[in-house]
Amino acid sequence: MLKSFDTTLNVLTDEQLHKEIAPGKNRGIYLLGHLIAVHDDMIPLLNLGDKQHAGLFEIFVKAPDKSIEAIPSVKELRNLWKNQMETLVPKLERISVNEWFEKHSAVSAEDFIAEPHRNKLNILLTRTTHLSYHAGQFVLLR
Amino acid sequence: MLKSFDTTLNVLTDEQLHKEIAPGKNRGIYLLGHLIAVHDDMIPLLNLGDKQHAGLFEIFVKAPDKSIEAIPSVKELRNLWKNQMETLVPKLERISVNEWFEKHSAVSAEDFIAEPHRNKLNILLTRTTHLSYHAGQFVLLR
Repeated sequence: MLKSFDTTLNVLTDEQLHKEIAPGKNRGIYLLGHLIAVHDDMIPLLNLGDKQHAGLFEIFVKAPDKSIEAIPSVKELRNLWKNQMETLVPKLERISVNEWFEKHSAVSAEDFIAEPHRNKLNILLTRTTHLSYHAGQFVLLR
Repeated sequence: MLKSFDTTLNVLTDEQLHKEIAPGKNRGIYLLGHLIAVHDDMIPLLNLGDKQHAGLFEIFVKAPDKSIEAIPSVKELRNLWKNQMETLVPKLERISVNEWFEKHSAVSAEDFIAEPHRNKLNILLTRTTHLSYHAGQFVLLR
């Protein structure tokens, strides 16, 4: 999924990424920042360390598109995406099978007993589904 | 994911489902048939029996949108979707944890030794990701 989205991203021009995916909806540039911010959030959730781009969450998750004027450029976001792919993927690959079934950091040990599906694997699956959801929108920019 | 897509579907009018998700792209009605056909295909893949709507595969997977004139109506597809939710989901819920890691029906026992990820769980995950991809497009019809 990551790889196929990466391909989609590479065929889109900067100009196309500035367009809205449909009239009045989010722009490609916003969704790209949104994906980086959401995937950045996986790092603390999976106990892999601290976020690398904490500031993006405010701009691309909490705030809707077109509500903040000064946002990173497409060029900057492409670099952040590439960088994230290169650093996050190897980290994920090092997680062992047993570890995927451990609780993620946003659930307490107590709650995890009652809700054992709130494991690290669940973080990976929901983020994959989320990426896929937006990937279906990016292809419309071509 | 299924539940959230079902909600999306319920808020869309028949008229909205006749629209293209973007100029020149697939219509909602085609994508709805497409999802039903792809999920129908899960039944034999997971050894749960025979397809319920074998004819839909030709119309909504093999053929592109707008290439076949006589396709089921939105009303018919909504009923098929509802019916499929009611029959497929309980079947999936009865599959045991161990069974999810067994091979699916489209991989040979021999190939499965070399590629153990081609299990039933993989069918569920890829179909969930696929549904999510198109769900991101359906929301644009509103």
